[in-house]
Amino acid sequence: MAKDKSPRRPRAETPKGFRDYFGADVTERKAMLDSIAEVYHRYGFDPLETSAVETVEALGKFLPDVDRPNEGVFGWQDEDGDWLALRYDLTAPLARVAAQFRNDLPSPYRRYAMGPVWRNEKPGPGRFRQFYQCDADTVGAASVAADAEICAMLSDALEVVGIPRGDYLVRVNNRKVLNGVMEVAGVLDPSDPSKFEAERGIVLRAIDKLDRLGEAGVRALLGAGRRDESGDVTKGAGLSDEQAEVVMGFMAAKRGTGAETVARLRDLVGGSVLGGEGVQELETIAELLDRQGYGPDRIEIDPSVVRGLGYYTGPVFEAELTFEILDEKGRKRQFGSVAGGGRYDDLVKRFTGQAVPATGVSIGVDRLLAALRAKGRAGQKSVGPVVVTVMDRDRMGDYMAMVGELRSAGIRAELYLGNPKNFGNQLKYADNRHSPVAVIQGTDEAGRGVVVLKDLVLGAKVAEEASLEEWKSRPAQVEVARADLVAAVKRMLDQ
Amino acid sequence: MAKDKSPRRPRAETPKGFRDYFGADVTERKAMLDSIAEVYHRYGFDPLETSAVETVEALGKFLPDVDRPNEGVFGWQDEDGDWLALRYDLTAPLARVAAQFRNDLPSPYRRYAMGPVWRNEKPGPGRFRQFYQCDADTVGAASVAADAEICAMLSDALEVVGIPRGDYLVRVNNRKVLNGVMEVAGVLDPSDPSKFEAERGIVLRAIDKLDRLGEAGVRALLGAGRRDESGDVTKGAGLSDEQAEVVMGFMAAKRGTGAETVARLRDLVGGSVLGGEGVQELETIAELLDRQGYGPDRIEIDPSVVRGLGYYTGPVFEAELTFEILDEKGRKRQFGSVAGGGRYDDLVKRFTGQAVPATGVSIGVDRLLAALRAKGRAGQKSVGPVVVTVMDRDRMGDYMAMVGELRSAGIRAELYLGNPKNFGNQLKYADNRHSPVAVIQGTDEAGRGVVVLKDLVLGAKVAEEASLEEWKSRPAQVEVARADLVAAVKRMLDQ
Repeated sequence: MAKDKSPRRPRAETPKGFRDYFGADVTERKAMLDSIAEVYHRYGFDPLETSAVETVEALGKFLPDVDRPNEGVFGWQDEDGDWLALRYDLTAPLARVAAQFRNDLPSPYRRYAMGPVWRNEKPGPGRFRQFYQCDADTVGAASVAADAEICAMLSDALEVVGIPRGDYLVRVNNRKVLNGVMEVAGVLDPSDPSKFEAERGIVLRAIDKLDRLGEAGVRALLGAGRRDESGDVTKGAGLSDEQAEVVMGFMAAKRGTGAETVARLRDLVGGSVLGGEGVQELETIAELLDRQGYGPDRIEIDPSVVRGLGYYTGPVFEAELTFEILDEKGRKRQFGSVAGGGRYDDLVKRFTGQAVPATGVSIGVDRLLAALRAKGRAGQKSVGPVVVTVMDRDRMGDYMAMVGELRSAGIRAELYLGNPKNFGNQLKYADNRHSPVAVIQGTDEAGRGVVVLKDLVLGAKVAEEASLEEWKSRPAQVEVARADLVAAVKRMLDQ
Repeated sequence: MAKDKSPRRPRAETPKGFRDYFGADVTERKAMLDSIAEVYHRYGFDPLETSAVETVEALGKFLPDVDRPNEGVFGWQDEDGDWLALRYDLTAPLARVAAQFRNDLPSPYRRYAMGPVWRNEKPGPGRFRQFYQCDADTVGAASVAADAEICAMLSDALEVVGIPRGDYLVRVNNRKVLNGVMEVAGVLDPSDPSKFEAERGIVLRAIDKLDRLGEAGVRALLGAGRRDESGDVTKGAGLSDEQAEVVMGFMAAKRGTGAETVARLRDLVGGSVLGGEGVQELETIAELLDRQGYGPDRIEIDPSVVRGLGYYTGPVFEAELTFEILDEKGRKRQFGSVAGGGRYDDLVKRFTGQAVPATGVSIGVDRLLAALRAKGRAGQKSVGPVVVTVMDRDRMGDYMAMVGELRSAGIRAELYLGNPKNFGNQLKYADNRHSPVAVIQGTDEAGRGVVVLKDLVLGAKVAEEASLEEWKSRPAQVEVARADLVAAVKRMLDQ
């Protein structure tokens, strides 16, 4: 026979690194975001939804001499030759909005934003090119009261989605303190801040890896460098042992109480003006939080938090879940960070030339949802709709009337809309839908003015475990008058 | 003076055709979509959120020999040379999902989807390149009971968001009936459906313009063609007067009752098998809806509905708002269409080679929201947060404790976080935020253990209209004990 000459069919696939979300994946994330939005709203934050597309110029990730900007973002050229791209976070668009609407927005401007962002990065297991972020920021507030507020709000948000007190900790640090320590260690010269910048970058990244590399690994990175298991060498910051000791002392500065930690940090930053300012800010934040009742059981000062991003200029914070889960290899480990943020005072300046103080937090939506599932607080199998089956194809009107009555009573219900010939397929469908009840009415039942209700939840249980007595005492199938359909289904659902 | 040599600052602008949504724009749309989702859920539809990015191949808009696919979509080439693009609607991704997950999804598969879509089209007033769609579709159901269900659900959705019965009408037609009429008119030959295809396309588009061009305009397009006011000529379908009469008769086939309309249509399609099938389907849909209590006050058969899209193969429907609004020139006009859809049986086939019957509806989110605002059911100025002002910069802890207490009591509240030096600016800020109450505590009040509450709603009213008596009987400013702060604010908000 001749081969089919029709053109090749398109592949039914998402692009690499992208995925679809079905049913409960969508509703559980939505419920979580709704709860968080309620907290943000109570704190006076207003929603903002920027467009997914920005000019590459506004995103500010690229050098003007790069021909095609594809480093990290999905970009394309529009009809006028301008480069456009999908936003890679929610902070860059906020900076653009704060500049564009600076005469119309209240100042300070508190806003929250929730939505997908896109990254043109190598996808991997659990790493997708489109994912949700959930941010809250205050633009135009220089006071660290704004940072304290963000920390309190983050704590409230975690509790409202179902992370109980004791299962999380918001940890606060300050980049100025770290800079003060760098001054003491001799890797920051206040009269020429650009000197030793590369070294400080290595120190920052080394500290950020304390969890993963341990003390010895960080020490190696602060000094000559580090060779990992595969033999790869990471260049170190070239600090002397004495200098490294100062930095390590900073990370270990945490004491039993906030006041003790602050005192220890004050010692460490010595005569550094910037460092002293940072310590003072931490002290103020702790005081302000204490006055609102947020003690160290919820928010604590922890000098080991640095956050990777280069643009932070003052307080930085991180929310960590403190309970243990089993990782993919069955080993116990702490769940870790689910949110982070800090103060960034230079992002709006790119557009306007004027410094605008800003601070904010970003919650890792997918990680937080995974945490809730790990704790059994999400991911339950949801109950499906009542399914009205079709016994007689020419009585569709009768069945549709039944499903209409159920829906009008607020009961989630469906009419079976596939080919009704094979009744077994209809029950398989109901099973696939996690339906609690199937409604059945053949010609005989219709003649007698009754319907049969099949309790599928009980049916499944009986099939698995019930004794004959139980089976008899509560049959999984009952016949009720047609007029009692809604009431009888309600009773069955409430059981 | 030397010119500033710093590099040019980026422009703080959204790309052309894109926009941002602030505050109530976000929450009102969200509230509307939440209500619609509740209806869809009750009907047994499951949420689906596909990725914003699809392969151009899966979207299927482009010919393989076009070098750069930029017709209507935003597309770019990935690192492997594949073309990717932002989705332009929610139906094409559904077809891809239905094919990709055909072994896992229930069949029939009822799903709803809500989210932005992107179109690379010339932007204009009110026409944006990113906008929301809100769709519900049933894939795998050949029965017109699926179409009837979609119409009933659309009716429920409109009512639940605040369009009362009588202010809307869901109108239903069937492409098969139109094709039957074309057979009778001699522009469709069942033995060679490809013949006269161009002519039928012109007829379809002409009918779709009845509202705008009137009967004479449509007649011209069915015949030789039409010259518009600017002198431009649109090519006609070239039908004879007799043929045009048949088509015009179809559009005017609507009668006082559904049964009469069906009878008239049966006359019109004459011996056409396809036409007869279409009439039968319309009759069945009307019957099924009637059995659920959806009469012609909500859903009616109207042969003038054709829907522009080429891919519809059977029933088509449209929801129209029947009340009048004033257009931008102050003229009364009907609000018009806010949703539409129909049966499309060939979209999944592109991927799998097997025909999969499907039907669905798309609600125009922005138009529906505009309608609610036109009716005064959305767009109200929302009440802002209570603003705690800052009189003494060194008592931030006291103020933060106040705002914390208010928030803990569920009251939306803010601490003023700008520079507190100028108190007038703080009240201006509260005004800008539509704040109902300002909380004030200077050193004197603090010493006496009291706070002052300023009723800003009443204050604005008094400034505008109140008599001296009113002013005295309910002062816009009261002093209360610090311990009574929350209770007193609550009383003021409830007034």
